[in-house]
Amino acid sequence: MGDIELVLVQLFVIIALAQVAKMVCTWIKVPTVIGEILVGILIVNTFIYDFIDLETNRDFFDVLKELGVIFLLFTVGLETPFSTLRKVGKTALLVATLGVILPFIAGFVFMTFMGYGELESLFVGAAMVATSVGITARVIKDLDLTQSIESRVIIGAAVIDDVMGMIVLAIVVGVAGGGSLDIIHVAVVSLEAVAFVLAVIFIGSLLLPKVVEKRQKKRLEQTCLTDKKKNGFNPLPLALIVCFALSALSAYLDLAAIIGAFLAGMAFGEFRDRFPCEQKIEPITEFLSPFFFIFVGIGVVLDAFSDVLLIAVILTILAIITKFIGCGLGSLKLGGKSAAIIGVGMIPRGEVGLIVASLGLSMFIVEEPIYNAVVFMCMATTLIAPALLVMTFKMKNKKQDKAPRFKTQEPQ
Amino acid sequence: MGDIELVLVQLFVIIALAQVAKMVCTWIKVPTVIGEILVGILIVNTFIYDFIDLETNRDFFDVLKELGVIFLLFTVGLETPFSTLRKVGKTALLVATLGVILPFIAGFVFMTFMGYGELESLFVGAAMVATSVGITARVIKDLDLTQSIESRVIIGAAVIDDVMGMIVLAIVVGVAGGGSLDIIHVAVVSLEAVAFVLAVIFIGSLLLPKVVEKRQKKRLEQTCLTDKKKNGFNPLPLALIVCFALSALSAYLDLAAIIGAFLAGMAFGEFRDRFPCEQKIEPITEFLSPFFFIFVGIGVVLDAFSDVLLIAVILTILAIITKFIGCGLGSLKLGGKSAAIIGVGMIPRGEVGLIVASLGLSMFIVEEPIYNAVVFMCMATTLIAPALLVMTFKMKNKKQDKAPRFKTQEPQ
Repeated sequence: MGDIELVLVQLFVIIALAQVAKMVCTWIKVPTVIGEILVGILIVNTFIYDFIDLETNRDFFDVLKELGVIFLLFTVGLETPFSTLRKVGKTALLVATLGVILPFIAGFVFMTFMGYGELESLFVGAAMVATSVGITARVIKDLDLTQSIESRVIIGAAVIDDVMGMIVLAIVVGVAGGGSLDIIHVAVVSLEAVAFVLAVIFIGSLLLPKVVEKRQKKRLEQTCLTDKKKNGFNPLPLALIVCFALSALSAYLDLAAIIGAFLAGMAFGEFRDRFPCEQKIEPITEFLSPFFFIFVGIGVVLDAFSDVLLIAVILTILAIITKFIGCGLGSLKLGGKSAAIIGVGMIPRGEVGLIVASLGLSMFIVEEPIYNAVVFMCMATTLIAPALLVMTFKMKNKKQDKAPRFKTQEPQ
Repeated sequence: MGDIELVLVQLFVIIALAQVAKMVCTWIKVPTVIGEILVGILIVNTFIYDFIDLETNRDFFDVLKELGVIFLLFTVGLETPFSTLRKVGKTALLVATLGVILPFIAGFVFMTFMGYGELESLFVGAAMVATSVGITARVIKDLDLTQSIESRVIIGAAVIDDVMGMIVLAIVVGVAGGGSLDIIHVAVVSLEAVAFVLAVIFIGSLLLPKVVEKRQKKRLEQTCLTDKKKNGFNPLPLALIVCFALSALSAYLDLAAIIGAFLAGMAFGEFRDRFPCEQKIEPITEFLSPFFFIFVGIGVVLDAFSDVLLIAVILTILAIITKFIGCGLGSLKLGGKSAAIIGVGMIPRGEVGLIVASLGLSMFIVEEPIYNAVVFMCMATTLIAPALLVMTFKMKNKKQDKAPRFKTQEPQ
């Protein structure tokens, strides 16, 4: 026992503070995720962190944080069946591509201009690439807009952009490690990533639904049992197994674990009529996902930023502008207001940028001050996006009464 | 990231194995909890433990295990409103008292007879005292018999017996530490424990329901809103906050954390009509509670037992017989078959016995071989009880078609 007492106190304090913050956010009509991040910032920058001795169980909470974002992306995936994602595929690809190239170039050029080394500049550029879909997904979920076309493009682009971000990271790490650009390694990683995503989508969202449908039909013909206990298949263990398996696999392939979780959710989204696992997964997500955002906030130690404040602010502005322009341009054909929503929705960088920065730090390529600046950029973009997103959605809805919605069609 | 990849692989392997075991158990009609414990024993005694490198994240899973049993007891508490527990109070008290005294004496006398020291014998006696309600609760839940009178007596007696077990432990630790029986310390701990349980029951299950009912009535009079979004209060955060707060408090008072979780569940059970949090808590319990049983199994390293097999077997037999007779005698007025069910239901020792044994080991009073024997006793009673419980329930139901059920009455 022993340790569990401390964990329970920490869980109590963290959840209670987050709940207060969420109630305040609901009251002043701000996405509750901002409250959760601010609670994290509050905890780490005040006596609370030491008071509840969070350092002792930091490892445990770091895992809880990762599980939180994995369950969140699984839930988001559940609400994004491939059949509907397919319709936004081309736009999402364009949005992702432009949204990767522009920030990367901006980060690299700015850092080189400021006199930093080529490798360090490359790392900063790479850290500016990948959108953290978690924040945006949560805001969209809070606004109940997961079915809107903008939401689908953002989620789709973020998935593609995560894969691209990993490819950029692999290239940068390859350059830093080998000293030169190893084309074969880059090619292998790129192929692996693309093949993984396509294979999972093909098997999980196209092949399996057909197989299950056939089996289901056969079974229904053979049996007339309507007894709920006999037919009532509990989908939770299967959902957990598939979610963890695909997350582990995608982490193993040096993609982010959340990509696997999202794809697993997507596959289950195809079966939502038959195995409705949302009701089982949703409470687990509700329990765990706040820990992701609270611990994103706990990453922000305010007094470490004073030295690089100017660089941090400029990087943040560049990150916001380049992503907004890149992704906005990619989705301009959906109309100016939708393009603005998509541009804003892609702004938050969050954990992926942090992973890149940490890796650079551990390879002794990125120095501590620049690491802090990148952390600031990730946090700032993460903090600013929800408010902007709510604003742009409101601007759009002024004209129309409601955002245009895709009809949710079941695949044949 | 990094570590999360390994955690995901471990989660996948553990949940997948447990699911296979549960399917086999369902098939051969054995409580699924046995499958989960056996999966743990399988993992730790084969290459699997090293293969998934479980040692690395053992701390994380140990916390997950504790959270699993806390959510399980909260769920059990939810289904045990005080208003119905009250009816079995006297019987439960008698069952608990006799079920504590007999095993303690048997353990102490046997160990002294075998030539072990007084203090070591005291610790073994203390480890034989407390029933692990987790296993029995799960079996009862699996059999869908939480409403039966036997179930209520068992759960009630196990709660009382946990408190008594902690008092016995406090006495033993006091004797071991001070060298003599410190009556004041014993008295303080005893008073604390009893006061905590009574205070929580009074506030949570008697006072609060009345206050809330009054407020609810007032509110309903003031407003006519039937909009679900406005009225639909999400009970999960509140349930989590109360559950963790009471668990931490009861751990802080040197009672087991699960006592607090159970009492918190009991309090929420009074509000189940107004704040139905079962649907939100149940999936979290379903996700986490298997880790408790799997890691109880992972505590069983088979080759460590060969030296003390005879002592371990005798201790196990004594633990089974004394608990069966003690608790059976205490509930004899409910009829022989109900008494048999209650006697059997109180047999499993599980985690509480393990805590006592670990404490004795860390105080250098209990030697490694005897520690192993106590672990064996806890495991064996845990493994044997579910099968016996199913058997005794079946024996009883042969006569009657259904176990007698309490009417679930709402308190005034």
